[in-house]
Amino acid sequence: MLKQRLMTPGPTPVPEETLLELAKPVTFHRSGQFRALLAEVLEDLKYVYCTKNLVLPLTCSGTGAMEASVCNTAPPGSKAICLIAGRWGERWRNISKAFGITPIEITVPYGKSVDPSQLENALKEHPEAEIVCSTLSETATGAKNDIAAYGKILKDKSQVLIVDAISGLGVVECRTDDWHIDLCVTGSQKALMLPAGLAFISVSDKGWKKIDANSSQQRSFYYDLKKYRDNLKNSDTPFTPANTLVKALKVSLKMLRAEGIENTWARHGRMGAACRAGAGAMNLKLMGENPADGLTVIHVPEGIDGVELLGKLEKRHGVRVAGGQDALKGKILRIAHMGYMDVFDVLTALSALEMSLLEMGYNQLEPGAGVAAAQKVLSSSIKKN
Amino acid sequence: MLKQRLMTPGPTPVPEETLLELAKPVTFHRSGQFRALLAEVLEDLKYVYCTKNLVLPLTCSGTGAMEASVCNTAPPGSKAICLIAGRWGERWRNISKAFGITPIEITVPYGKSVDPSQLENALKEHPEAEIVCSTLSETATGAKNDIAAYGKILKDKSQVLIVDAISGLGVVECRTDDWHIDLCVTGSQKALMLPAGLAFISVSDKGWKKIDANSSQQRSFYYDLKKYRDNLKNSDTPFTPANTLVKALKVSLKMLRAEGIENTWARHGRMGAACRAGAGAMNLKLMGENPADGLTVIHVPEGIDGVELLGKLEKRHGVRVAGGQDALKGKILRIAHMGYMDVFDVLTALSALEMSLLEMGYNQLEPGAGVAAAQKVLSSSIKKN
Repeated sequence: MLKQRLMTPGPTPVPEETLLELAKPVTFHRSGQFRALLAEVLEDLKYVYCTKNLVLPLTCSGTGAMEASVCNTAPPGSKAICLIAGRWGERWRNISKAFGITPIEITVPYGKSVDPSQLENALKEHPEAEIVCSTLSETATGAKNDIAAYGKILKDKSQVLIVDAISGLGVVECRTDDWHIDLCVTGSQKALMLPAGLAFISVSDKGWKKIDANSSQQRSFYYDLKKYRDNLKNSDTPFTPANTLVKALKVSLKMLRAEGIENTWARHGRMGAACRAGAGAMNLKLMGENPADGLTVIHVPEGIDGVELLGKLEKRHGVRVAGGQDALKGKILRIAHMGYMDVFDVLTALSALEMSLLEMGYNQLEPGAGVAAAQKVLSSSIKKN
Repeated sequence: MLKQRLMTPGPTPVPEETLLELAKPVTFHRSGQFRALLAEVLEDLKYVYCTKNLVLPLTCSGTGAMEASVCNTAPPGSKAICLIAGRWGERWRNISKAFGITPIEITVPYGKSVDPSQLENALKEHPEAEIVCSTLSETATGAKNDIAAYGKILKDKSQVLIVDAISGLGVVECRTDDWHIDLCVTGSQKALMLPAGLAFISVSDKGWKKIDANSSQQRSFYYDLKKYRDNLKNSDTPFTPANTLVKALKVSLKMLRAEGIENTWARHGRMGAACRAGAGAMNLKLMGENPADGLTVIHVPEGIDGVELLGKLEKRHGVRVAGGQDALKGKILRIAHMGYMDVFDVLTALSALEMSLLEMGYNQLEPGAGVAAAQKVLSSSIKKN
């Protein structure tokens, strides 16, 4: 028996109780019962978001919600400042282009974060830009961006701050209201502990003002956020939602509420610290100067075939982690520890990684060093609690 | 114990075996295993579509796929001929407007179907129109449109034929290739026997030509159909799909293949005929001159409160049917018999309807007449097999 462990940065494992909810008979979505459920789920989401504002439920991938954020706020011909620290930041640029919006690209090398001063400079150079698009946790590199600092810069400016928090919300600190995030996007298949298929956007008052001012420029029917706002007055959705996923989300969100959002962040903090300590003790180089705690991104050591390593982890040890995308394929390993995970899952991943590397001839580690280092972090963090 | 029966025209009941698949652990979608699964599912979908062309999988509601069909084929400023026989036909008009496309509205009263001659006339008047949008089964009224005739008219013309087959595919005859349907849209939560969350579009060669010719006019990132085509070369999707739904779809599609698509149509034909015969025998008036077999739409008799009737069916008898939408609220009853249903579900609905009507003082029926009439249709259709 080879136990399978899903440690990719989305989809992530779904709690058994939530999976069982998905196996229940399907019910009708235009009913008082479903409206009450949707209202409850959106209230619980506000808790995870740390927001008092409306959270809109969309049936699509996270990219759909990113698209909705852009096309509702910036008209064609306008400018979008895109803060790019990796593949997911690049997506903001590509979405902008698709809608005839000129992206102002503020790009840092993979592994780095965008410095708030770079945003300040971009705003000075392009004060007419309509929106600023950024990424909380850049899943391609494991880098975290300083959204709080961006929000501080933008709060008294005309630009709305749009954040891709798809792999960050419910993982690392994200205070949507306190940080002045105007549109905050997430997806169901990360820390919300659900299969893929739902995405969410919170919208601030400033965000709605921009959307309403832009309304003559409607460039989508399915992603017209005003329709979602109007329908939510009656706890309803404009289009048939993935209602079984909404029902299951209730179960996962109750788990997050029971843990408490700051405890959730702390748990991810422990997992991240343990994984980084373990990798460091194995003499592996980390990517991401300012790492987000939802994933640890490791450079594959020289002489080791990254694709073979991935395969060994999966087939020999049942541990499914992600490799690099595009140019980084075969060069990095992305071990996710987000959502329905705990510190012992991290220990398992490190153990499997050590054994795989040793099998492949990597000789820069002392057997057991990784799990021992991780163990030290874990026991010290437990003492602190 | 009040057994619950979902008889709404989407969502529809999902087979137990499919539900159990949804309760299985989540797996990674960027893997050979998932690509093989997706390829198999899309092959099985081609069978249901009666097409040799590519079927694109989208993670969204049916409306998202309708939007994708329009914005990929018709540039802003162009004309779309919209054949409108109800609320879902009206959606084509509204989507067109959202993209700056002028809708040419060919509208018939609710309950009627659009006559092919109306399309011919519209083409004469607007030969420059880029697309023709139509509806196979108009779920608002139960009317079926003659898609085969539309296709015959359009096959040698420049316009592409786009069909909303969301509540029609896998229910009534729909020969995508033989009928020259260029873009055929469906959703997961109808006859495909799955929860909501996935939508599909088949695209003909003529459809791709139109899409490629229109490509400088990209007006969506998430719905750029060329990206889906490109990714399918490797049995992949451009964005994270609702992969647990794809896995579950395999189970439902195997059931459809085992039945055989013509037998599936025949089963729906029997259910439709039985339901209409039963309603007729209860002296109820039907909507939809040319009824689609996936639902039976009944006028609520005078003196009966339609909303109260719906509530009684659900709360007293556990039978959940749909009412009318918008102006038809309280005036009609929509009994769905599509997807994971058989003739005995229809008998149940008629029985519950009779008892509810009698309780509410309706005196135009002889007790038992509805189920008896339905039973006659059923036994004669069984003899024929």
